[in-house]
Amino acid sequence: MQTVTPFSPPPRLLLGPGPSNAASSVLAAMGKPLLGHLDPAFISMMEQIKGMLRKVFKTNNEMTFPISGTGSAGMEFCFVNLIEPGDDVVVCINGVFGMRMAELAERCGGKVIRVEAPWGEIIPPEKVRTAIKEKKPKLVALVHAETSTGALTPVPEISQIAHDAGALMVLDTVTSLGGCEVDVDGWDIDAVYSGTQKCLSCPPGLAPVSLNARALKIATSRSTKTQSWYLDVNLLAGYWGDERVYHHTAPISMIYALHEALRLVLEEGLETRWKRHRENHERLVSGLNKLGLSIASQPGHQLWQLNAITVPEHVEESAIRKCLLEDHGIEIGAGLGPMKGKIWRVGLMGDSSRPEHVDQFLEALKKLLATGGIKTTP
Amino acid sequence: MQTVTPFSPPPRLLLGPGPSNAASSVLAAMGKPLLGHLDPAFISMMEQIKGMLRKVFKTNNEMTFPISGTGSAGMEFCFVNLIEPGDDVVVCINGVFGMRMAELAERCGGKVIRVEAPWGEIIPPEKVRTAIKEKKPKLVALVHAETSTGALTPVPEISQIAHDAGALMVLDTVTSLGGCEVDVDGWDIDAVYSGTQKCLSCPPGLAPVSLNARALKIATSRSTKTQSWYLDVNLLAGYWGDERVYHHTAPISMIYALHEALRLVLEEGLETRWKRHRENHERLVSGLNKLGLSIASQPGHQLWQLNAITVPEHVEESAIRKCLLEDHGIEIGAGLGPMKGKIWRVGLMGDSSRPEHVDQFLEALKKLLATGGIKTTP
Repeated sequence: MQTVTPFSPPPRLLLGPGPSNAASSVLAAMGKPLLGHLDPAFISMMEQIKGMLRKVFKTNNEMTFPISGTGSAGMEFCFVNLIEPGDDVVVCINGVFGMRMAELAERCGGKVIRVEAPWGEIIPPEKVRTAIKEKKPKLVALVHAETSTGALTPVPEISQIAHDAGALMVLDTVTSLGGCEVDVDGWDIDAVYSGTQKCLSCPPGLAPVSLNARALKIATSRSTKTQSWYLDVNLLAGYWGDERVYHHTAPISMIYALHEALRLVLEEGLETRWKRHRENHERLVSGLNKLGLSIASQPGHQLWQLNAITVPEHVEESAIRKCLLEDHGIEIGAGLGPMKGKIWRVGLMGDSSRPEHVDQFLEALKKLLATGGIKTTP
Repeated sequence: MQTVTPFSPPPRLLLGPGPSNAASSVLAAMGKPLLGHLDPAFISMMEQIKGMLRKVFKTNNEMTFPISGTGSAGMEFCFVNLIEPGDDVVVCINGVFGMRMAELAERCGGKVIRVEAPWGEIIPPEKVRTAIKEKKPKLVALVHAETSTGALTPVPEISQIAHDAGALMVLDTVTSLGGCEVDVDGWDIDAVYSGTQKCLSCPPGLAPVSLNARALKIATSRSTKTQSWYLDVNLLAGYWGDERVYHHTAPISMIYALHEALRLVLEEGLETRWKRHRENHERLVSGLNKLGLSIASQPGHQLWQLNAITVPEHVEESAIRKCLLEDHGIEIGAGLGPMKGKIWRVGLMGDSSRPEHVDQFLEALKKLLATGGIKTTP
């Protein structure tokens, strides 16, 4: 049998759409010895995680905990618990993750009403108002920060429109949480999900979620059983709530890591952290402008943590990206869907968002653009 | 704000139904710096994982990879991809995990035909034959090693019966894989799932799965879309196959850990590993007999890696378990369902299966039984 040697990851500065670099104490937490998922010591720690997540989401929702899967599992958790076959569902689409929500809502038997905006732009509230007028939907789903385009859609007005029509407001905060303001209770969000590997700077593998009492009532009084056993909030509540009934074996090490990552977020302070993300974004934009480059997404609504840079016309997008990774150890992301080949996606998320990383990237990019992205073998 | 301090897990010998203790090199792998999920270095490592999983499952199935969720997500993966509403499905039930399969099959719209055996006993093949005679089911689902009762049901004959009737054979190997023989190709299993945290001794968080060509054809030619977006094999194949299309962000650190855990399994050798599990089970049984205790599950079909011990009548089950944890740092499991309060479940899985652990447990148990499980405060 061919022997496999232990794996050693090459050093990388992660400036893609996620994962971001994790702090050394978060990585160290992952490597701590295991506990059982019903150990009292583990359970006290879970309680701390719920408390810290509430602070980060800015919510008092009791039902706030991490799903044992990546961000997309958080989306699936919200949708499978809230949608029943035949429900009208408004989905706002201005990028890949809006499309994904529509696709999933249909798999839940929802009748999807699409509210679309061009990729790179935000969702205009009046479009949601118009769509809602025709139907009385059960929920309105919106991506706060579209990772595929770098646009940040303001939430409060759309949430108001949803509630005026008696609908629940469901929000994707995978890329926004920890990098810019998210105010679940202030914005009256009924169901929210996120991921760990973006601005929380924890390895990928968990999806923090929160449901308020209104959403929870709908999820717990369905006429049909949730189509997912793994993600059924009625069962998960038994483990994450006071009963501590075994549902599935919690991913212990990932939960250690999330504990440490949330601790660091709160130690820094939410507003300080948002400011840091803004400042490093501004530093990036200023440097890009000096190189004659600009951000592709709608002015005034550009994400700090995920920067969609327009690729100059005569430059081969993938060649630059490849050289950045291979010669400079810097990962950035490609465009998706209609933006493929047209943008680079540069993440400045969590621990990756530092002035020295911005400078390191700009310097490498400058060199590569000077050679047109072609490798200069000495 | 109340400050949360970094979490330090207390030292534990994990002899419960999972997680088992992980080797130090597996824990160290978890703590390595992150890579992007599309990084060529990460992708080569994924290929090694697929290769190693094939060896551990004893299969040549191309579609062999880990699902980004715990063992139960692996069960859900198999069921949501293979079952369509209205399908007849035979589910064998002799414990908690069989019940769970039936529950999930119903959530997939399957019409479940239950083949039941008393808890602690194996599924008799003739009962499957009788159940199949009446219907032509799409699949037969069986739990190989029932973690809730400690019974190991032999697979080949039931698999033959399923195939004779034109049904797929789906096997739960969550607790068996790595601890006793599992021969996916030899037993002609069409779909199989497992977990990482039992006899593979990797932290919980991933579910290795494998589908053969027959199962894959059914999953890829459905008339309805899979009800789960997260677990749809048609989408997952795009990432774990040659295309490397982004589906969800892979749990990087967990995959590092699985790489190292599988490496250790193959370094030890499957048959040597199974022998080690058998020998430590025998050591445990012999020590238990000396204490006047015995195994609750069906003689001749007792699991090596999960030992259901009958609690003596005058002993308070939970008091002993609590003292073992608090005073001796040893975790063991409680009984579930009808076996609650009647058995202890002692796992000797993967790295936890060592003669010194058996002795440590027996010695602690002996002391506690002498005092009736009541704490002796000096």
